[in-house]
Amino acid sequence: MITLADPLEHARACFGNRIAVIDGDRRFTYRELANRCERLAAGLASLGVQPGDRVAVLAANGHRYLELFFGLPAAGMVLVPLNTRLAEAELTHIVQHSGARTIITDRDPGGLAACVDRVITMAGDYEPLLDLAQRCAEADVSPDDIAAIFYTGGTTGLPKGVMLTHRNLVANAFNKIVACSLSGDDVFLAAPAMFHVAGIAPLTGLVWLGGTTVTAPMFDAALCLDLIELHRVTFFLPVPTMLAALVVEQRARPRDVSSLRLLGHAGSPIAVESIRRAHETFPDAELAQFYGATETSSVVTRMRNEQDALDTPVAGSCGQPAVGVVVRVVRADGIDCDTGEVGEVVARSNAVTIGYWRDPDATARALRDGWYHTGDLGYFDDRKHLFVVDRAKDMIVSGAENVYSIEVEAALYRHPAVAEAAVFGVPDETWGEAVHAVVVLHPDAVAGADELRQHCRGLIAGYKVPKVIEIAEEPLPKSGPGKILKRVLRERHLAR
Amino acid sequence: MITLADPLEHARACFGNRIAVIDGDRRFTYRELANRCERLAAGLASLGVQPGDRVAVLAANGHRYLELFFGLPAAGMVLVPLNTRLAEAELTHIVQHSGARTIITDRDPGGLAACVDRVITMAGDYEPLLDLAQRCAEADVSPDDIAAIFYTGGTTGLPKGVMLTHRNLVANAFNKIVACSLSGDDVFLAAPAMFHVAGIAPLTGLVWLGGTTVTAPMFDAALCLDLIELHRVTFFLPVPTMLAALVVEQRARPRDVSSLRLLGHAGSPIAVESIRRAHETFPDAELAQFYGATETSSVVTRMRNEQDALDTPVAGSCGQPAVGVVVRVVRADGIDCDTGEVGEVVARSNAVTIGYWRDPDATARALRDGWYHTGDLGYFDDRKHLFVVDRAKDMIVSGAENVYSIEVEAALYRHPAVAEAAVFGVPDETWGEAVHAVVVLHPDAVAGADELRQHCRGLIAGYKVPKVIEIAEEPLPKSGPGKILKRVLRERHLAR
Repeated sequence: MITLADPLEHARACFGNRIAVIDGDRRFTYRELANRCERLAAGLASLGVQPGDRVAVLAANGHRYLELFFGLPAAGMVLVPLNTRLAEAELTHIVQHSGARTIITDRDPGGLAACVDRVITMAGDYEPLLDLAQRCAEADVSPDDIAAIFYTGGTTGLPKGVMLTHRNLVANAFNKIVACSLSGDDVFLAAPAMFHVAGIAPLTGLVWLGGTTVTAPMFDAALCLDLIELHRVTFFLPVPTMLAALVVEQRARPRDVSSLRLLGHAGSPIAVESIRRAHETFPDAELAQFYGATETSSVVTRMRNEQDALDTPVAGSCGQPAVGVVVRVVRADGIDCDTGEVGEVVARSNAVTIGYWRDPDATARALRDGWYHTGDLGYFDDRKHLFVVDRAKDMIVSGAENVYSIEVEAALYRHPAVAEAAVFGVPDETWGEAVHAVVVLHPDAVAGADELRQHCRGLIAGYKVPKVIEIAEEPLPKSGPGKILKRVLRERHLAR
Repeated sequence: MITLADPLEHARACFGNRIAVIDGDRRFTYRELANRCERLAAGLASLGVQPGDRVAVLAANGHRYLELFFGLPAAGMVLVPLNTRLAEAELTHIVQHSGARTIITDRDPGGLAACVDRVITMAGDYEPLLDLAQRCAEADVSPDDIAAIFYTGGTTGLPKGVMLTHRNLVANAFNKIVACSLSGDDVFLAAPAMFHVAGIAPLTGLVWLGGTTVTAPMFDAALCLDLIELHRVTFFLPVPTMLAALVVEQRARPRDVSSLRLLGHAGSPIAVESIRRAHETFPDAELAQFYGATETSSVVTRMRNEQDALDTPVAGSCGQPAVGVVVRVVRADGIDCDTGEVGEVVARSNAVTIGYWRDPDATARALRDGWYHTGDLGYFDDRKHLFVVDRAKDMIVSGAENVYSIEVEAALYRHPAVAEAAVFGVPDETWGEAVHAVVVLHPDAVAGADELRQHCRGLIAGYKVPKVIEIAEEPLPKSGPGKILKRVLRERHLAR
């Protein structure tokens, strides 16, 4: 009978004077944060927002995102975070699909304003809103009520709204506390986008324990390292491309990062060489990989102390199932795969979504017999370490052979000149699909396509070696959370 | 959608070769334990035990208790642990009330055999039972199904059957992992009775993490210290009377207890002086107090690092609410008390019982609007540290003044000669109730009642000083979990 209202109430009562959040020059104690959350909900209620109503948020990271995440669901309202990188047409679709009549934003809402009844700007309207009322009527919030709807990036087709209930986010808080060994001494750097569940859900457990959140408006390697040094950050959870940028920046201009106990990464596969470089650059931090999805409120498996596994058979694994999550790898007929056999990764936990908002068909496809079907392909070793070999849709079928792009990318990353690599399939008359790669080299590094293909031949089977390797001059396109957008690369290739 | 079946399956898959349990000369890996649990359920099923059926267990601690706790609920069966200290008439009542048709026991069941369809003796029938079948049909177990019914000691009236669901025990596992900072490196000593929820519920989280349980058939200070030394035990959670005995034994015959990271205590109030003595005796262990009830699956509040709080205003507090539990102190009308004001302690969490088995009246009294009413009296300080001043029924009303027996007992314990103290009210023509004490002195210590009363006068108000102090020659009577049975002492007094 616990809801998302409880962690912050707990923190206010038990450690009201501790710093809850640091956002640039602004810092708020738990007492202040809880008070602001209460007044935020009260202000919205006085404007007519009711329990169950969706409220869309289009904003960069900051203390107000925390207030929205804790304040709205506590009053029974439903948070709908919007990906700030989407085009107006995409945002319009999401806002209309969610049925939100209110949008809170730190930018010009443009045409979005026409979709809603009210626009609340952070610069102008937000603080006065907090002064409209002190408290709203106590909402009768149940653990099975929806707390937030996170629209997924949608690598194909229209974005889907992942409904996460209070029970989901509370369960995820515990799963995360255990998976990350969180404590009240932790200082968490919220630089990855808080509009993604992986960027904001860790805060539930952190708040419960009385830790501190430092927000950065966006990811910037230099800014993040400055904040880590300044605020003695203990825990940071970037995506692999951010981690790579952090490595480059720290090597160029070292900061004091001795406070960092846990440097995790999540959101997309990573090459073992990237982990090795991170370990060389941050030798005192524990490296850890977290695998999950929006539909699972984030963590599904975790690989702790990756730096100790670099030269072992579990290097590159995303780890064992997190405590609180049950994970299987299954064949098309739903039967468990044998050890080492590749199948679809499915998960069950109290943190798994109840489904997609207003999309029963997609819900029925993704949730079967209580199991969320990730669409990812992977296998287990004999101690239940999960190896994700590819997103189901990213698998390349070349000839009669399956090629998992992560394996080819890992080979490319082992070449010292390679900074970024993306591998995907393109139509091929002979092979059905041909393996195609786009790489970006390190500054000042020199390598040709032939040299890189030769390098790969020494590491992987011939049919896996890219038929074509493009050397790109610009950084590869990335999604909000920093995943390389292979879809965009593939479309560019096909459009030529 | 997580049940009590998941932690052990997780442990089997992730760390199948780790030692799960050590019971004397017997030790089983997680793979072996999981296999035994499966065969136990299969054996019972082949005898006709169905999902939903209650199975009573009357036994001392041991590896088989773990097997029953994990094996039965995983197959949808309901465990009914019996307090081995109860008289046959009391046991008969419980077995009949529970509706159990099967009893599993390590002793002669006596007249209990007549209440059930089948008696399974641990010495003769248990191992062959495991060979009857390898697996039973997969049960469709839901988180809201009952996993176990724990009959409470019932300080007054008939014992009540506290129903704990899979969801309750899973939630409690997480609450406990966080409250105790459990990890897979922990070695837990299960010496307090496993027929109490506080003795067995900690194992859920421990199994999930892959820790090791060492069982002792019963509490014995010398045996426990031997086991701590032998197996490098890291976590022990006795009741205060056991802790006191441990202190005496360790002082007399010191063992190497350097492995002990967390020495907790729970189950009844403790005097600050007892914590101080424990700290002096176990200087390297963290001392921690846990407050809870069977109805809350155990932990409600926790006071970590008590040794650092000995000379602070929070000394003697049972700590702040555990993460995952919401605690209030309320007046008779249900309104929250002010800081420092004594009221009834009520709690809400996913670990709180759904009610008493076949007792809707008692359920309605204890569970109101989702809050479990503990019957305990306490107050909060301004940082939400809970101070339990007394069990509601143990409060003495003398004259117009309320006397909380814990306060008087604490005063008595501060006298160096006092080993055990129990304070309760007895009828008094003048005062309504008079404060009455029974104490046991340390071996070789000498002190008279007058000296002890004089000692108390220096510490507490005159109306709180016991009118009569009896010096007992024998240890005070205790319940299964080691609580001093004041009810018995009071009855003895009244019977004179």
